[in-house]
Parts: sequence; structure tokens; C-alpha cells
Amino acid sequence: MLENKNHSKTPIKNLGEFALIDHITKGFTIENESSRYGIGDDAAVLDHGKDPTLISTDLLIEGIHFDLSYMPLKHLGYKAVVVNISDIYAMNSIPKQITVSVAISNRFTLEAIEELYKGINLACKNYKIDLVGGDTSSSVTGLIISISVLGSAPKKKIVKRNGAKENDLLVVSGDLGGAYTGLQILEREKAVFKVNPNTQPDLSKYTYCIERQLKPEARKDVIELLDELEIIPTSMIDISDGLSSEILHLSKASEVGFHLFEEKIPIDPEVSMTSEEFKLNSTTSALNGGEDYELLFTINQKDFEKIKNHPFLSVIGHASDLKGGCKLITGLGHQIELSAQGWQSFT
Amino acid sequence: MLENKNHSKTPIKNLGEFALIDHITKGFTIENESSRYGIGDDAAVLDHGKDPTLISTDLLIEGIHFDLSYMPLKHLGYKAVVVNISDIYAMNSIPKQITVSVAISNRFTLEAIEELYKGINLACKNYKIDLVGGDTSSSVTGLIISISVLGSAPKKKIVKRNGAKENDLLVVSGDLGGAYTGLQILEREKAVFKVNPNTQPDLSKYTYCIERQLKPEARKDVIELLDELEIIPTSMIDISDGLSSEILHLSKASEVGFHLFEEKIPIDPEVSMTSEEFKLNSTTSALNGGEDYELLFTINQKDFEKIKNHPFLSVIGHASDLKGGCKLITGLGHQIELSAQGWQSFT
Repeated sequence: MLENKNHSKTPIKNLGEFALIDHITKGFTIENESSRYGIGDDAAVLDHGKDPTLISTDLLIEGIHFDLSYMPLKHLGYKAVVVNISDIYAMNSIPKQITVSVAISNRFTLEAIEELYKGINLACKNYKIDLVGGDTSSSVTGLIISISVLGSAPKKKIVKRNGAKENDLLVVSGDLGGAYTGLQILEREKAVFKVNPNTQPDLSKYTYCIERQLKPEARKDVIELLDELEIIPTSMIDISDGLSSEILHLSKASEVGFHLFEEKIPIDPEVSMTSEEFKLNSTTSALNGGEDYELLFTINQKDFEKIKNHPFLSVIGHASDLKGGCKLITGLGHQIELSAQGWQSFT
Repeated sequence: MLENKNHSKTPIKNLGEFALIDHITKGFTIENESSRYGIGDDAAVLDHGKDPTLISTDLLIEGIHFDLSYMPLKHLGYKAVVVNISDIYAMNSIPKQITVSVAISNRFTLEAIEELYKGINLACKNYKIDLVGGDTSSSVTGLIISISVLGSAPKKKIVKRNGAKENDLLVVSGDLGGAYTGLQILEREKAVFKVNPNTQPDLSKYTYCIERQLKPEARKDVIELLDELEIIPTSMIDISDGLSSEILHLSKASEVGFHLFEEKIPIDPEVSMTSEEFKLNSTTSALNGGEDYELLFTINQKDFEKIKNHPFLSVIGHASDLKGGCKLITGLGHQIELSAQGWQSFT
């Protein structure tokens, strides 16, 4: 069957802001009782009952945080939501509502914005989040997305960064380094494409890494698992900037040191193989790569039996004396001081 | 006394993101009991007790929403907060917390960002708001500010756009058209400055209009007054896009028409005089200018006695049959259909 290449494209200025908001929010339904009064007034009204409200916010800018040459708009919308709600899960809490503000330059058509919101909508459906507000405007260059997420949890279940105690176990969900390795593959293909736009790359052997970069998921399942196992972590953070940087955050907030065992860091075989191809050390990708959005947390040793051998969770170290600092213990027993080489937007 | 022109300027990249956040949030103190756990974790934790939480969000982009050639950064920070909290007051509620995300290009120094946050901090102090989160990153071009504001109010006091009933009185606070007129003055001075950079303009006779544009205030006092007078408006909105556009919003949400009396629209004498100088009709500035951040609301006629002759409040019309539409009644008794010509970022 022949494809119809004559897609009609609609300039945004044909609609105006209010019609655009009406149009893009049409496909959204309300999932939470607490989103009592959403889009269409000066503010959204939310009812979190007696539980505290949590809020987190992120600003994503084309050319700084994402590259549309390999990031499809639908994936971008999905990822923008996931990155934000991950911060609420990292407090052992449940995200409930988001507001999304989008600014676009005149190179974006209505169809492009629809793609973006399809991804946002899919993430909302998958994670049972309600879109309750936001705005749209034009930008001077490129696409800008600002998302705020609201959540709630019973006061006694909220986990901060500051509760780790000496000898607590350091646990991470899933595996690490995949998103960074995926980024290396996409950057290489972009460079190849620039030289020869007719190449059709075979990326099938990199599926996992590329998916980790383009369509990350937030670990809602881990929060549900912890609840089921009746574990309240003593401290928790999500891995956005790399394991190293996040361990240092927990250390600073909790006033403890950490011992991290290199051999225990969970790394997918595809990540190891691809790292070799790129002459990267996969431990370095896990430590400094970032964007995995796994959860890193500490638990009291008494909870060890409950998580032992769980396929999602790896014990990778333990909290120690603050004076000892944060150390990576290599396979050969060497100790290396951890440093934050996470993603730095200003350098 | 000679001015020391040798100010030291600090490039942002000398600090990095985490140090920058620490630095700019140092001067902020927590004002509200409900901001229990603010900056420095994945999310802020807020306790609004049994009252619903309200959220509103705005994205401000250099070259689209503001012009730094006449907007000092401190004023910009102040205005960015005011514009946002005005949306919470417009729900008859009290703003309590904000998150501020800022993206900056490399032309901004640390000192410039400090100026911006001085304005944000001043607004927080004046309105008793707590800064509880946000992030900073670099931008490709110019300055981008994204603010979300959270507030709360007892459920029965929250006022939406949809409660106006036929014969309710239409009331506006303060006076209108000033911010738009101020913008005309500043745009003219910018054009003059381009031609002759040595001109020293005398703007003293435009003080009120320029202040309305550069340093607007949100009508916290009106919300407090309504509480004192035991008036709960039947519908309410803040005037960001111009009186005309806002009346149409109330009309659509409440399913009523409106009669607006031209002679009753409050306009400051400086606005009238300056409008004449610019060959503008001051009614048009009030109807379509926007950015006045006054409150527009409807009240039941039984509450008229309570507000009659109040210096802050003007009754400018009343709600009518939906079928009659929204009409401006001129001094000569002509009826003109209102249309939304408010600020359109896409045209």
C-alpha cells in the first residue's frame, strides 16, 4: 500500500492559545479523586485530605536537555513526565497530578505538538496521573517544557535523603549505565547520518540501551513492592545524575559515609558489551552516566531478609562513618574516593 | 562621589548547578508552617491540612514575555512571582509556596542571577510565600523562568469562574489600562534610545503607568477585604489579558452574558492623559491591554451595600442572559459586542 505523503500540517497561529489548550487537553481524563477541579481556571484545586502534598518541578530545554534529531516528540513527552514523577517516587510517595507548560518556536506545527502531548498522555495513563494545568506560549528558539508534579503520601511513609544511619544497606533497583550507553549510540548514529544521510543503521542489537535513553520508566513498581514488603527506606533518591552523585547527596544529607562495591553494581550484559565497543568502562557509565531513573535507597539491616535475592533489587554497599567518606571498593580491593561528575548543564 | 565601575562579575560556570542553587537560595527564609520540608530533596513536602491544595504555573521567556532592555532583573523576579500568585488570589485563596526554575544563557553572570532572585525574594517576603523548590540550568538563548505556585483555602471559600448568576454585579478592583500604557511609554523610550543613546528621558510624569508595568502587585488586600466583609464572590478571575477577555472567560464558564458600562470602568487620570498623548483610547487599553493583575468578580446583589463606595472596588456592570452575549454599553448608550483581543503569543 502506498503511503500518503501529503500530510496536512497546521500552523499553531491558526488556533491561538486558548483553542490550542482546549485541543491538546481533549484526550486527557481525570484518574484521581483528588484532582477535583483541573484545567480551565486560574488554578487547579486538589484535595489531598490529611496527607501532605509533595511538589517537584523540572525545566527541559531543546539543545540543552534533549536533541530532537533522535528523540521523537512522543517519546520526549513521555520522558518529560517520567523524569518528573520519578522525583515523587523517590520520596516513597505517589504522584497524582502534573502541570505542563510548553513554549514552541514557529517551526513546530500543531501535529508536532499533538505528538508531544500523546506521549504526555500515555505517561499519564500508565502512571495514573492527571494533567491539571499549565500553559502554552511561543518561544524565540526551540522547544521548552516545564513540568511540575504533585503527589501525596501519609506523613510517616515519606522518605527523605537525610535518614540513612551507619551500617544501613545501600540498595539500588534495576540496572545502571544503560541510558548513558544508549546516548552514546544515538550520538554516533547522528554523526554518521550527518556524513551520509542515506545510511540505514541497524540498531537492533542496542534495543535495551536505546530504550533506556529514549523511553525510561519511573520505578512505581518498586514503591509498590516496598509497601508490600512493609519496608520504609531510611533514605532515598532517584538516579538522574549518576550513582556517584546520588550517593554523595545521601551522604551529605544523612551525614554518613558509604562503601560501594564495584562488583555489586547491576549492569545489563548489553550495556557491558556496548561499553566495550565504545571503549567505555561500564562501571564509569553507571557511576557518572545518569538518566537511569532507578531508585537508590538505604534500609535497616533487619529488612535484608525481605529483599534478599529479589530480581529488581541489588544491595550494592552500606553506610559507614562520615569521616571515612564515600568509597568505591573495586574488585581488586582498591578504594577510590567517589566524586560527583554528574551531568553539569553549565560546563 | 565616584562610582566604582570595576564591579567583579562571576561566570556561572565557576559554580556549577548545586552550588548555584545553594547560593541563590541562601537569603530565603520559611514563612509558612505548611512548608515543612523545602529545598534540597527530590520533592518539597507541604502540609495543607484538611484544606485543598491549589496549583498554578507560568512560563516566562525573554523576547516573548519580557524585554530586558527596560525591565531590570530585580523587577522581573518580583513580577514573575506576582503574576503567578495573582492566579491563586483569583480563586479567593492564599498562595503559600512557589517553585522557581530558571534557565540562563552564558551572557548572564552570577550577579545578574542574584538580582533576579533579590526580586523573587522581595516578593516572597511581601506576600509571605516560601520558595520550596525548582532548578537552574543553562539555556541556548536568553532567560527562561518557570514558576509554579501552591496555595490553599477552606473548600467553601474557593471561588471558581463558573458561579456567576444572572443579575449578579460585576466588580473590579483598582483601575485598568495602566500596565499597557506603561508598556507603550517604555517601548517609545527604547526606540528613542536606539536612535540617540545619549538622551536622558524624563519619565517622572509617567511614574504610575511605568510602575504598573514594571512592578505590578497582586491584590492580596482585596482578598483580605472580601474576607473581612464576609463576601464570597460567585465567580472570580484576575486580569492578565485585558478586561474584555476575562469577562468572556467568566461568561463562558458561568453560562451568563454580561453588560459592561464604559463610564464605570475605573481609569487613572495619568492613564487617560498618557493615552491621549499616544492617540490611544483609554477604554480600549482597559479592555484589551492586560497585565493589570486586578481582580474581576461577581457578587450577589445582596452584598452591594457592603462594597458600595469602597475606594478599591468599582461595580462596572452585571451578569445577564447568556443569549444576550457580552456587551459594552457606551456613554451614548450604544451596545458593542465584546471580543477577546487579549495578548496572543502566537500571532
